[in-house]
Amino acid sequence: MSSENPSGADNQQERPGIEQWVVGFVDGEGCFSISVVRNQGCRLGWQVQHEFSVTQAAPSRSALEELSTFFGCGYVIENQRTDNHRELLLRFSVKRRGDLVGTVVPFFEEHPLRTAKRFDFERFSTVLRKMEAGEHLTEAGLRQIAQITEQMNRRQRSRFLESSEAIRQPSRFRTSS
Amino acid sequence: MSSENPSGADNQQERPGIEQWVVGFVDGEGCFSISVVRNQGCRLGWQVQHEFSVTQAAPSRSALEELSTFFGCGYVIENQRTDNHRELLLRFSVKRRGDLVGTVVPFFEEHPLRTAKRFDFERFSTVLRKMEAGEHLTEAGLRQIAQITEQMNRRQRSRFLESSEAIRQPSRFRTSS
Repeated sequence: MSSENPSGADNQQERPGIEQWVVGFVDGEGCFSISVVRNQGCRLGWQVQHEFSVTQAAPSRSALEELSTFFGCGYVIENQRTDNHRELLLRFSVKRRGDLVGTVVPFFEEHPLRTAKRFDFERFSTVLRKMEAGEHLTEAGLRQIAQITEQMNRRQRSRFLESSEAIRQPSRFRTSS
Repeated sequence: MSSENPSGADNQQERPGIEQWVVGFVDGEGCFSISVVRNQGCRLGWQVQHEFSVTQAAPSRSALEELSTFFGCGYVIENQRTDNHRELLLRFSVKRRGDLVGTVVPFFEEHPLRTAKRFDFERFSTVLRKMEAGEHLTEAGLRQIAQITEQMNRRQRSRFLESSEAIRQPSRFRTSS
């Protein structure tokens, strides 16, 4: 982090309450997502993807840039999903595990969300802790992570848990105790 | 306001930064809306409706109740529009002009929004000021208000401006100078 992009702690002195603005904005528009997706380059053929994001229409670009400056990580990018929106959508996105574990998760542990989104955040941070411990590199750990993802956001069935690997070879995915 | 429901100013001492959480949450999920709707009980046959609202799924009810406590006005009600959502939606809603003019508008003037939603807020407060001055009771004033509403939110054409009264009798709706 450069001195021109102060972190949350430095920023606090310049803009009192900025942390709580960030908490409120993320309570409103933030998304903590974990996906287990096919990737033949990974040892188990599946990769765990993690992202913290906030989406806005283009006229609110400066608010997303405030988030980027505040956290000192992530990028503001064009959203590929346009859904029903007529305007260009932008997304503040943090995907690097080091940034999530080192910056984003500690911030929201210190400054808790006030909506039900905090339950998604808790599952998100649980998965990241498991990954820091290397659990996603084992079949049992990957299954646990996929089960957690089913409780997040849109509560979709995990494609990994529906896959032939997980269904046809149950003994290989049993959690070791 | 009872002492058990402290206003924003009192609340600040209990929960530092609560104002900025409110600003951030409203930047994310708030809506400032003005509608000019048919109402034969009104002098001109049209009524100006105003609402500040924040919508959440039912599991985040407590966050909406925080807003109600913070502002010391408004209600948490069930949203009648369900759209594509599977969950019950709740809405924190302030409609009374006295609450909007006396509490909501001064709060966001003192604690500005950081997204493009601030432009909607500015139009919203402009309309309320016009109403405080009685301008909505004149045809010229009503036309000005309807023109402002077309610049807000979904930027829909005003039904009032498309109505036969406004189209067929242009001279009656000309702004007096």
